[in-house]
Amino acid sequence: MGYLEQIQTPEDLRKLSVQQLPQLCAELRQFIIEQTAQHPGHLGSSLGVVELTVAIHYVFDTPNDRLVWDVGHQAYAHKILTGRKDQFATNRCYKGISGFPRREESEYDAFGTGHSSTSISAILGMAMAAKMDGDTTRNHIAVIGDGAMTGGMAFEAMNQAAYRNVNMLVILNDNKISIDRSTGAMSKYLLSITASPAYNRFKNRMWNLFTFRSKQSNKITDWFGRMGNGLKGYLLGGSNWFQSLGYRYFGPADGHDVVHLVKTLQDLKKLPGLKLFHVLTVKGKGLDMAEKQQTAYHAPGKFDPATGQIIQPDCAGMPPKYQDVFGHTILEIAREDDKVVGITPAMATGCSLTIMDAEFPDRVFDVGIAEQHAVTFAAGLAAEGYIPFCNIYSSFLQRGYDQVIHDVALQNLPVIFCIDRAGLVGEDGATHQGSFDLAFLRSVPNLIIASPLNEHELRNMMVTAYHNAKNGGLPFVIRYPRGRGVLTEWRNEPQTLPIGKAELLREGKKVLVLSLGPLGNNVRAALDALKEENINAAHLNVRFLKPLDEEKLQELSVQYPVWLTVEDGTEKGGLFSAVAEYLEDHQLSNQLHHVAIPDRFIAQGDIPSLYHEVGFGIEDIKQKIKEII
Amino acid sequence: MGYLEQIQTPEDLRKLSVQQLPQLCAELRQFIIEQTAQHPGHLGSSLGVVELTVAIHYVFDTPNDRLVWDVGHQAYAHKILTGRKDQFATNRCYKGISGFPRREESEYDAFGTGHSSTSISAILGMAMAAKMDGDTTRNHIAVIGDGAMTGGMAFEAMNQAAYRNVNMLVILNDNKISIDRSTGAMSKYLLSITASPAYNRFKNRMWNLFTFRSKQSNKITDWFGRMGNGLKGYLLGGSNWFQSLGYRYFGPADGHDVVHLVKTLQDLKKLPGLKLFHVLTVKGKGLDMAEKQQTAYHAPGKFDPATGQIIQPDCAGMPPKYQDVFGHTILEIAREDDKVVGITPAMATGCSLTIMDAEFPDRVFDVGIAEQHAVTFAAGLAAEGYIPFCNIYSSFLQRGYDQVIHDVALQNLPVIFCIDRAGLVGEDGATHQGSFDLAFLRSVPNLIIASPLNEHELRNMMVTAYHNAKNGGLPFVIRYPRGRGVLTEWRNEPQTLPIGKAELLREGKKVLVLSLGPLGNNVRAALDALKEENINAAHLNVRFLKPLDEEKLQELSVQYPVWLTVEDGTEKGGLFSAVAEYLEDHQLSNQLHHVAIPDRFIAQGDIPSLYHEVGFGIEDIKQKIKEII
Repeated sequence: MGYLEQIQTPEDLRKLSVQQLPQLCAELRQFIIEQTAQHPGHLGSSLGVVELTVAIHYVFDTPNDRLVWDVGHQAYAHKILTGRKDQFATNRCYKGISGFPRREESEYDAFGTGHSSTSISAILGMAMAAKMDGDTTRNHIAVIGDGAMTGGMAFEAMNQAAYRNVNMLVILNDNKISIDRSTGAMSKYLLSITASPAYNRFKNRMWNLFTFRSKQSNKITDWFGRMGNGLKGYLLGGSNWFQSLGYRYFGPADGHDVVHLVKTLQDLKKLPGLKLFHVLTVKGKGLDMAEKQQTAYHAPGKFDPATGQIIQPDCAGMPPKYQDVFGHTILEIAREDDKVVGITPAMATGCSLTIMDAEFPDRVFDVGIAEQHAVTFAAGLAAEGYIPFCNIYSSFLQRGYDQVIHDVALQNLPVIFCIDRAGLVGEDGATHQGSFDLAFLRSVPNLIIASPLNEHELRNMMVTAYHNAKNGGLPFVIRYPRGRGVLTEWRNEPQTLPIGKAELLREGKKVLVLSLGPLGNNVRAALDALKEENINAAHLNVRFLKPLDEEKLQELSVQYPVWLTVEDGTEKGGLFSAVAEYLEDHQLSNQLHHVAIPDRFIAQGDIPSLYHEVGFGIEDIKQKIKEII
Repeated sequence: MGYLEQIQTPEDLRKLSVQQLPQLCAELRQFIIEQTAQHPGHLGSSLGVVELTVAIHYVFDTPNDRLVWDVGHQAYAHKILTGRKDQFATNRCYKGISGFPRREESEYDAFGTGHSSTSISAILGMAMAAKMDGDTTRNHIAVIGDGAMTGGMAFEAMNQAAYRNVNMLVILNDNKISIDRSTGAMSKYLLSITASPAYNRFKNRMWNLFTFRSKQSNKITDWFGRMGNGLKGYLLGGSNWFQSLGYRYFGPADGHDVVHLVKTLQDLKKLPGLKLFHVLTVKGKGLDMAEKQQTAYHAPGKFDPATGQIIQPDCAGMPPKYQDVFGHTILEIAREDDKVVGITPAMATGCSLTIMDAEFPDRVFDVGIAEQHAVTFAAGLAAEGYIPFCNIYSSFLQRGYDQVIHDVALQNLPVIFCIDRAGLVGEDGATHQGSFDLAFLRSVPNLIIASPLNEHELRNMMVTAYHNAKNGGLPFVIRYPRGRGVLTEWRNEPQTLPIGKAELLREGKKVLVLSLGPLGNNVRAALDALKEENINAAHLNVRFLKPLDEEKLQELSVQYPVWLTVEDGTEKGGLFSAVAEYLEDHQLSNQLHHVAIPDRFIAQGDIPSLYHEVGFGIEDIKQKIKEII
C-alpha cells in the first residue's frame, strides 16, 4: 500500500499532488473491494464514486464545507477518507459503523441519509443558514444519483433552491440506474444529453474555454455561462431541464477521470451561487463483474475480491425468502386474472416482482423512486377495476403515508399493499428498520392489516386479498419481513382466510401469547421449550391486526388471565396498543405484557443480535414468559 | 336566467352551440358568486376555471372520459354542471355535498381530491388501465394548478407518464399563485414562458397553423408538433421544462376565452398520446375585488354578491385565532433571537406566519406546496444551529411523515413543528380533518408532543420549545386546532413549562378526566355543569402526549378508579392508547373510557355538528361522564 495508508482525514489527502490521486483512487477502490468482499455491503455504488469522493474532499474544505450524500450507501470511500478506515471492517455490523452517513458518527457526515432524495433539501437548509450568517465562502455540496433525482422531494428542493442566491453545488451522479432499471422521463432526458454528439463536441470545446475563462473575472464567467447555457439548450434540442429551473448546468463529465474532476471542481468552487454538475459514473467501476451485472452487484453479499465471483451461500434445503414467495404467488394470481398488476417504486429485484415481470412485463410497473406516486397510481388503477399489488418496503411506505390515507383508504379503493422489509431488517440499520408501519397504518380507517405466520399464510393472505379486491372490498395490507421463511415445502394450494379471524395454535394454562407475523415461529419454539419445563402457554396467531378478532379475544379472556403480545414493530401503536385498547374498552382485567420494538431507533446489526437486543430471540421470549408467570 | 337553468348534466351542455357558451359561463359565474356569497367556500379558484370547466365538459365525453381536478377546491362549476346544481346550497355543509370531488358523490368525480398534486398519478393509473383494456379512444384529463405542480408527487407522476404512450392530457391551470405567493423555479419558469414576446408572436402563428394542420393526418400533426416544440424551446431561451420531460407542450392559452378553449381542446382531443396544455387564468375572475385581492378571496367567507365586499363578522370581544397567537408569538421570539426562522409549505396566510413575514421577510420561508421538502429543509437549518418553527397543517404533515422520522427524529434535530388544523377542521371535510397526527407521531421515537389548553398555553409551549431547541433538546411538536381560542386577554408573559408534566386542573371524586388540547375547555364546562348536579370529577390537562407524565398518572391512579380520556384525534393510537398502554404496563386496574374521533373518516360540516357527532360537545361529554359513573 502507498498513499491510502497515510490518510486519516481529508487534511492528509490534500497533501498529495493531483498527479498522485489516480494511484490513491486505485488503492481506495482495492480497499473497498477487499473489505466489502468479506463484510457485505453496497459495493456497486461505492465503487462508482471513488474518484468523485477523492476529488470533492481534495478540492473542498470538508468538514467546514458541507457535503451531503443522497441515499448514502455510496459513501464508503467518504467514510474511509474521513477517519473511519480502521473501523471499516465493522461496516454495517452490530455496534460497528453504519452503512450510511450518520451525524453522530463523524463531523464529516454533515447530514444523515438512508432514504432517497433528501440531500438537496438538507443542503439548501445549510446553505441558507450560511447566507443568513453572512458567510459567503462556505460551500455546500449535495451528491445525488439520477434515480434519486426522480423522487419528488428532490424536485421540491430544486424548485425552492433556484434563484435563492446560495452557494450550492448539486452533483448529479448519473450512473443510468437506480437499484433496478431506471425508467421515465428523467432517465430518457439524461440519456439525450449524454448521447448528443453535437452537444458533446461543443461541450468539450466549451469546457476548455470555461476552464480558461473561469480564471478571469466573475463577470466574464457569468456572461460566458449564460451564453454557453443558451447554446447548450439549442444543441440539446431545445430542452435543458436544469436550465429551465434556473440552474447553471455543467457537464456531463467523466466521473472516473479524477484529475479532470479536480480541475473542474476547482473552477466550480470559484463560481459563487447555484450550480449543477452532471457527472457520468459506472456502477461497480473497477470490478469487471460488478460493472457488467450492476443489479446483482448493488449489494452482492460476500464475493471473491480477485475475480468478483459472488460466493453463493449454500441454500440447499433452506426455506425460501418471503420475497420470492411473494413473487411466485403474484405470478400465479396474475396468470388467472389479467386485471392483476404489480407496482414497485424501484425495488423490483429486492421485492422479487421481477418474477412476474419476466412473464408479464406489461403488467408490472416500476415507477422509479417515487413512493407517493406509486400509491396513487395504484389507486387510479383500482378505480378502473384493476387489482394492483403495490409492493413497498415498510420504511419507504412512510413516504406514501398521505397517499394511503387520502387516495386509497378514504376512497375505499381495493389496493393491495404488500409491505416488504417490515420489522427489523438488520444491517441497513436505523433508516431502514420497518418499525412503524403497524402503528401508522392501524390508525387509518378502512384498512385491513394482516401479517402471515409463514410462507403458506403469506400465500393465503395474498389470495384472500385478491378475492377481497375482486369483490370490491376494503384496501388490504400484508406485511412481512426481509429474508427467509420457515418452510421448505412452501408452495401450498393457497386458500382464502376469513378476514379478521385469528387462529389458536395451541391451548395452554394461564398464559396466552398473541403473536402477529413470523415472530410467531419464535414464540412457537419458545413454547415448545417451555413445555419441557412443564410450562404450557397458549398461542394465538393474530393474523389480522385490523380488524382485530374481538370475538376470539373475548373468549380467550376468560380462560387466560395473563396475556403477552409479540410483534415485530414499535411498542407504541401496534398490536400491544390494539389489545390494550380492547381490554380497556371491554373492562377486562387480564394482565397484559408485551414484546415489541422499544420506543427508540434501532441501529444496524445482524438479526440475531438485534433480536436479542429487543427480546425477539427464542430464549428471550422464553425468559419473558417465565417472568410474567 | 337562461342556459344554466336547462343544464342538469354535461349532456345538456353539449346541446348548446359554441356561441352560446360565453353566456352560459357568465350565468355560471354569477351562480357561483351568489351561492358562495351565502355559503362560504373556495371562491377564487372556482371563478378562475369557469370557462375551462365548460370547455372540458363540452368537448370531452365525461363521465366516460375521465376528469380529475387536482386539489379539487376549484371544482364548483364542475359540480354545478354535473347534477349538483340544486344541492349546491349545501356545499360544505353537514350532510350536504363536499367542497371537493368525491367518488361516492358523482360518477363525474372520477377521483376524489383535497390534498395537492395527486391528479397526474391518478389519471395516469386510469389511462394505463384504458391502454391495458385496449381502449385507445377514452380520454384522460387532469387539471392541475401551477402551485400544485411544485409538489414533488406531481413530478414523480410526470416522470413516469412520459413515453408511456397513453391518452392523457395534463391541463396546467396557471394562475400565478398558490394559496400564498408562489415561489421558486417553476413559478419563474412559467413566467418566462408567458412573458416572452418572441415566443408569443411565434405561438400565435403556430397556433393557427396547428389548428389547421390538426385536421390533417396524424403524421403531419406529429411532425408539426415536433418541429414546433424545437422552435419553441429555442425561442424560450433554450429551455422548455415540459418538453425536456417528453411532453408535447401547447400554450399558453387564454383560459377565459371559452370559444378558443373549445376549439383547442377539440384539436387536442384528436391528437392521441401525452399532451400538456398550458392555460392562463385569473383567480377570482369576474369579481373585481376577488381578482385584485386573490389571497383574501381564496376562501373569503360571506360577502356581498353585488360588490364583492367581504362581510366581516363582528369579532369584537372574541378570542383570537390560535393561528394569530402563533403568528404574534413567533414574531416575539424571532425579535429576541435572529436564529429563529419560520417555514411554511404555501400556507403563510392560513397559519398567520405572515405576521412574522411582515417584519422578517428574510427569515420566513414559504417553500411552496412541498411538505416533504419543508421538513428536511428545516432539519438542514437546525443542523446549522438555526431554530426553525415549521408550521404545517395536520393532514398535510401526513405527506412529510417520512421526513419527520428520517431527517428530524432519527437525527434528534431540534426542529419545532407547529401543527395547525389539528383535530376536526369542519367544512373542508374528510381530506382535511387533522385526525391522525397524534397517532402517527406518537410512535416516532425522540419526539416531544404537546397540545395547549388555550392561547396562554400555546404561547408557553412555543417558548418552551424554543428554549428546548436552543439547548439542543429533542424535536418538539405543538398541535392546535383551526379557529378561535377561549381567552380575550390572550397575550400573557410566556413562561417555560416543565416538559412532560401534566397539570391537575381540579380535584374530584372517583372520576378523572384526562384531556389533551383545547377540548379541555369543553371538559371544563361539562364538569362545571356536572357540579350543579353534585357530580365532581377531577380534570387533568395532559399537556404532553409524549413524554407522558407517568408520575402524575401513578399518583392519580390511586385516588380515581374511573378514567376518561378526551382528545381531538383518532381513538386508535393517540392519548387513549397511550393511557391504555400505561395502565397495562403498570398493571393498574383503573377503568378507562375514551372520547375521541372514531375509526372512520369524518365528512364535512360545521364544528358544532361534527363535535356532537363524535361526542366532543359539552353536553356530550357531560352525558359520557354520567354514563361511566
